[in-house]
Amino acid sequence: MRTPVGIERVNGDRLWSALMEIGRIGETHGGGCRRLALSEEDGRARDLFCRWAREAGCTVTVDAIGNIFARRDGTQRDAPAVAIGSHLDTVPTGGKFDGVYGVMAGLEVMRRLQELGLTTRLPVELVVWTNEEGARFSPMTMGSSVFTGDIALDFALSRHDPSGVSVGEALRRIGHAGEAPVGGRQFTAYLETHVEQGPLLKESGERIGVVTGSFMARYFVATIKGQAAHVGPTLMEQRHDAMVGASALVLEIDRIGRSRGRDGRSNAPHIELFPNVRGVIPEEVRLSCDVRHPDAGEVQAMEAELREACRRIAEERGVSIELEQYFEFGPINCHQSMNELIGETADLLDLPRRDILTVASHDAVPIMEYCPTALFFIPSETGISHNEKEYSTPEHCTDGANVLLNAVLRLAS
Amino acid sequence: MRTPVGIERVNGDRLWSALMEIGRIGETHGGGCRRLALSEEDGRARDLFCRWAREAGCTVTVDAIGNIFARRDGTQRDAPAVAIGSHLDTVPTGGKFDGVYGVMAGLEVMRRLQELGLTTRLPVELVVWTNEEGARFSPMTMGSSVFTGDIALDFALSRHDPSGVSVGEALRRIGHAGEAPVGGRQFTAYLETHVEQGPLLKESGERIGVVTGSFMARYFVATIKGQAAHVGPTLMEQRHDAMVGASALVLEIDRIGRSRGRDGRSNAPHIELFPNVRGVIPEEVRLSCDVRHPDAGEVQAMEAELREACRRIAEERGVSIELEQYFEFGPINCHQSMNELIGETADLLDLPRRDILTVASHDAVPIMEYCPTALFFIPSETGISHNEKEYSTPEHCTDGANVLLNAVLRLAS
Repeated sequence: MRTPVGIERVNGDRLWSALMEIGRIGETHGGGCRRLALSEEDGRARDLFCRWAREAGCTVTVDAIGNIFARRDGTQRDAPAVAIGSHLDTVPTGGKFDGVYGVMAGLEVMRRLQELGLTTRLPVELVVWTNEEGARFSPMTMGSSVFTGDIALDFALSRHDPSGVSVGEALRRIGHAGEAPVGGRQFTAYLETHVEQGPLLKESGERIGVVTGSFMARYFVATIKGQAAHVGPTLMEQRHDAMVGASALVLEIDRIGRSRGRDGRSNAPHIELFPNVRGVIPEEVRLSCDVRHPDAGEVQAMEAELREACRRIAEERGVSIELEQYFEFGPINCHQSMNELIGETADLLDLPRRDILTVASHDAVPIMEYCPTALFFIPSETGISHNEKEYSTPEHCTDGANVLLNAVLRLAS
Repeated sequence: MRTPVGIERVNGDRLWSALMEIGRIGETHGGGCRRLALSEEDGRARDLFCRWAREAGCTVTVDAIGNIFARRDGTQRDAPAVAIGSHLDTVPTGGKFDGVYGVMAGLEVMRRLQELGLTTRLPVELVVWTNEEGARFSPMTMGSSVFTGDIALDFALSRHDPSGVSVGEALRRIGHAGEAPVGGRQFTAYLETHVEQGPLLKESGERIGVVTGSFMARYFVATIKGQAAHVGPTLMEQRHDAMVGASALVLEIDRIGRSRGRDGRSNAPHIELFPNVRGVIPEEVRLSCDVRHPDAGEVQAMEAELREACRRIAEERGVSIELEQYFEFGPINCHQSMNELIGETADLLDLPRRDILTVASHDAVPIMEYCPTALFFIPSETGISHNEKEYSTPEHCTDGANVLLNAVLRLAS
């Protein structure tokens, strides 16, 4: 293959090897990865990343929320860096690509720059953001959101996991409670590549998905209250079973998303049940749920249906239901000039591309308000993520890293 | 009030005081009790009981599963004892009467015998059975079932709570891992009084409910398997959401019990959800459920409906469901001669009585196979148990203890 003038290419084999090697940390029997944020496994992956980054000529800094910045100086030492990044943590049922692919693609960019002996005008920084998934510690995109000031540092450090360990304590245990202050680093631009977490690129055959915007997502906690009572002698007609109310609500939530076809999403993936013992009718259920759609008006309508369902189910099932919104994101419009840069870079590399929306949040989402940002996807072979079956081919991984490398060169030169 | 010849009466005020005093151990804000089996609170309640029993002239022995035997010798020292008992542990949402009432009524019998200077022919033993509720450690009626040989001691000692503490370890922590061997104590008869856990006595106005038998109850674990995937990008049509399947099943279980009117019961009070994080479609749910009815044929029919519901929901919701039975009890027929004794004793005390079935298991249920056994209820004012609102009046508590005292005197003389 002819390399067009001004186009550089990464070492795809080296990228794939790095991805597979770091994927052994927290590897599951089925070939996936369980590397919860700030766990011992996450600590080992972060340590390996730091070593690799230093070997690639970077200086490594860790801030107080554990974000890792691997920096390659430019000729203009004090100029704002071109930043790239993603995350190393996974959900409990994670795969070997979500997040870590973006970090390893960034590492390959750093390695290639070193190999080429190329000093860019602007510094280049590769960032590992702490706790993107929010699976162990809520909320998600924690490190990037603290970095941008959307979440207070103290608040984040005091969040705790189900066993009571705080973020601050977990950072200390793995030796990643850094001394650098959070925020204050200026970025010229931020680039993130990620595996697509759905089937669209695979279905339509393009190799790069340029994220032009996001779905709108609205998140709620539904608190369903019934009355604890003995499961045996309590007559069915006397009961106020919070789990029966919650179950009716889960089915309604599922229906609300399905009724919008391929643009609708609705979830009720997290449940807390009290007292959750075999002898007692459930007294209280807390159900985390969300509705998503590209169109804000549709999200409003979905929420209205959800609130009506809560009202009706409470009446029918003899329970009380309170619905409280706790988070919202989107619809986001990404930076057009940044997307044009990604699009042109893909074109130069002869990689068919399409515009795509992201349904999930990513570290790029909070960063979008902070500096010009681009987010782009490579195809998923299986169309599934947060699952051991998550898979992207070596070729597609190489494609994304090539786009990243050349976009960085354009921005930093 | 005239005391008929041969009738003795307990000190109702002393009984009520004891019940209120021990109820302060683990007392909740709403006036209930949280005293999980072998917790620090249970340990304190057990210690208090042992002190009170010794002060009432009893010798106290603890066996290897933590059952406490407070013995008052008879003139025939080696004859099988007349035993009475119940339990001190509660569910997390417990009240101040379930279990502990039977123990305090038994203690009042011992105190009254001491006060009267009465030595019976047969020994009398008051038993506190370990872990009747099964709320912290499954299975329930653990101490009484190990005593009768229905459950192996090693199996019971190795059960653990959700935080991984075993029964054996919990017994050692509170100093109640006794040295006496389990079982081998001969009983002439066993008597247990308990608060009714439903509304029937209150509704019909009788003061003693003689338990003539039990409902039949069959217990299952339903394992619902879906596919973990990202809650955002995964199209609704692609999903295999284990929680949606479980929710549909919970509603069907509720319907199956309701369709049998006042004789039907069905429950799904305990759920384990994996991975139970906000970013992942639920992969697996384990749902503990049961169906109950006085008629064994109806229980068969309810199980058949449950199995059909599992099949249909699995197909409709794109999940797999396996239903495994893990426990069964009843229908039990209680010992007629023992029930006649309770009935006659209530008549002598001018206490209106009725026959009643128990829907829940009690320590008397495993003991029923071991020796002649009687179980009888006093009314619940609120018709509810396993709830802070659980309440029986001082008068009704006195009634039950009076029946217990006089039945013991008849059996032990």
